[in-house]
Amino acid sequence: MNYQDKKVLITGGLGFIGSNLAIRLCELGAQVTIVDPSVNGCGANDFNIHPVLGSVSIIRASIADSDSLQEALRQRPIIFNLAGEISHHHSMAFPERDLEINTLAQLHFLLTVARFAPQSRVVYAGTRQVYGTPDYLPVDENHPIKPVDFNGVHKYAAAMYHRMLSDMGKLDALVLRLTNVYGPRMALDVPCQGFLATFLRKLLTGQQLEIFGDGKQLRDPIYVDDAVEAFLIAGAAEKFPSHSYNVGGPEPLSLAAIATTGSQLAGLPSPSFREFPDEHKRIDIGSYYTDSTRIRTELGWVPRTRFQDGFERTLAYYHSNLRRYLDPSQPNPPCKLVNHDNPQSEAKSEIVRA
Amino acid sequence: MNYQDKKVLITGGLGFIGSNLAIRLCELGAQVTIVDPSVNGCGANDFNIHPVLGSVSIIRASIADSDSLQEALRQRPIIFNLAGEISHHHSMAFPERDLEINTLAQLHFLLTVARFAPQSRVVYAGTRQVYGTPDYLPVDENHPIKPVDFNGVHKYAAAMYHRMLSDMGKLDALVLRLTNVYGPRMALDVPCQGFLATFLRKLLTGQQLEIFGDGKQLRDPIYVDDAVEAFLIAGAAEKFPSHSYNVGGPEPLSLAAIATTGSQLAGLPSPSFREFPDEHKRIDIGSYYTDSTRIRTELGWVPRTRFQDGFERTLAYYHSNLRRYLDPSQPNPPCKLVNHDNPQSEAKSEIVRA
Repeated sequence: MNYQDKKVLITGGLGFIGSNLAIRLCELGAQVTIVDPSVNGCGANDFNIHPVLGSVSIIRASIADSDSLQEALRQRPIIFNLAGEISHHHSMAFPERDLEINTLAQLHFLLTVARFAPQSRVVYAGTRQVYGTPDYLPVDENHPIKPVDFNGVHKYAAAMYHRMLSDMGKLDALVLRLTNVYGPRMALDVPCQGFLATFLRKLLTGQQLEIFGDGKQLRDPIYVDDAVEAFLIAGAAEKFPSHSYNVGGPEPLSLAAIATTGSQLAGLPSPSFREFPDEHKRIDIGSYYTDSTRIRTELGWVPRTRFQDGFERTLAYYHSNLRRYLDPSQPNPPCKLVNHDNPQSEAKSEIVRA
Repeated sequence: MNYQDKKVLITGGLGFIGSNLAIRLCELGAQVTIVDPSVNGCGANDFNIHPVLGSVSIIRASIADSDSLQEALRQRPIIFNLAGEISHHHSMAFPERDLEINTLAQLHFLLTVARFAPQSRVVYAGTRQVYGTPDYLPVDENHPIKPVDFNGVHKYAAAMYHRMLSDMGKLDALVLRLTNVYGPRMALDVPCQGFLATFLRKLLTGQQLEIFGDGKQLRDPIYVDDAVEAFLIAGAAEKFPSHSYNVGGPEPLSLAAIATTGSQLAGLPSPSFREFPDEHKRIDIGSYYTDSTRIRTELGWVPRTRFQDGFERTLAYYHSNLRRYLDPSQPNPPCKLVNHDNPQSEAKSEIVRA
């Protein structure tokens, strides 16, 4: 896995995972170009790449903007394709927006890649959301695809583009289906991005966590450095026998355990429990955790960071940099996508699916 | 299966299968409303519904046009959702157009249905193209989803919308994954709609058929009346235990056998054989035929029409009505989507996947 002097292109490189990947690739000596238009609600933050600001090139354009990408693509970089919107909630409130960001823009991008850098390696950030409510646990790659939100549908369509264009010989792409990722550089001011960001924001602003129901649903959170490692291995792999790889955390943990550990590390009281609100019950998918056997055996990747350690590092990062991620006077920020001119389309409440 | 006085809405009702369905529903006493904007290349033909012209209402609007559909939807019809583009070739030449027609428009339509006619029964015309090149034969519903063209990706995204919105309680939808359908009212002047339409057009204009390779690849063509019957059963079923049902023909036949039977029925010489052209070899999916066990056992549908009989009836229909479907002075019509102002975007040759 030698990235010294390698050209790499990271779409969504100002976002959470993309920026951590960019920093790691700079450490490894790669020549990093970031493509990111900082779409509202998608988690981009210029401060994320503060440590490598002088060493990376930034193209501030949509991945759909072919003209802006041609020059970078002609240099035949390894492509890490993380651009997108990950919010369940945004996708349900604004499905057409989600289709445009997660499917249409990817269509344009991949056709541009196929044209100017044919047969390029592309590692796409997929999601475990495509599996929906699990039929069995742990969930492997053969689990039926039955997304429970527009985000899952649209990201799966983009994953199909990657596969199809690779089968046609136009790309050399694979898809990582990521479980819940956490760590430094998560957006905290976008209130619709999943329970780990919400937990983190509350803990960092001194708020006691609240668990709906008994909190026994399992998740397998993965520390961002482990997810980054999966991208690096996938980008450098000479062969990959499969199209899609699940990327899960090191162990299943209950939501109650995750919240309790987080609260302890933050020096806050244990979480309180309250009845499951109806609007949450409707979207609850029960337990989920990943069978990552395929990527372990075929590509040799393993997650190394236990939740306790990863979350401690995460809290430490934000303690030093909180003002770059959150306005402390507004510890519960409203959804950025609410359209105040058109209350009909407003995202009425913050419903975060675990 | 009683459709007497039932209100039904057929999207794409001026097209091939939709118009046959409309005529059958009129015979059964239903009150039929057709939604069809006659999009270029999608096979709509006003003559298709000639036999029932006085008995059906027609809304000449896109399914994405919420305002035009509200009144019809408020009457809570059973919805047969056949609007779309089915051409492999068009989708590869104009993928964004295919996304707009097959995914974006369906998104708008289903949100409109969920709003004005919540919990409506919707029977969606899916396609066997979502399976791509078969891993095994016959292909059942558990076969991996790996479309080999944009059309398959986009139609699968629309199928996921149907499933997801049904799981959320907003629709009561199911998907029929149709194999190659043939019969009266297929478009003959759109040269990119599959091998059966091409065979038919050539036979009707006195051209000897040409088979690439040995013609041993299997298909299971289904006569349109049998496909219509599947829609009728699905629309009326009290319960349907599954989300998706394969709808295949009565028997697998080789392309050579299909062409030979067709030529005999048309009174033309047997097909000639020639080497597989490269551009066809690349997109050939080998043999495909359907395992329709699920719809047989769960919904009681069976295909009844043997190819010989169905094709004979098809030829008879066109012998009486050929000028409504083809300009006899142009027996090999060009692709209607070719943009003569922009030769870059032209569909250069007629590559029809079997």
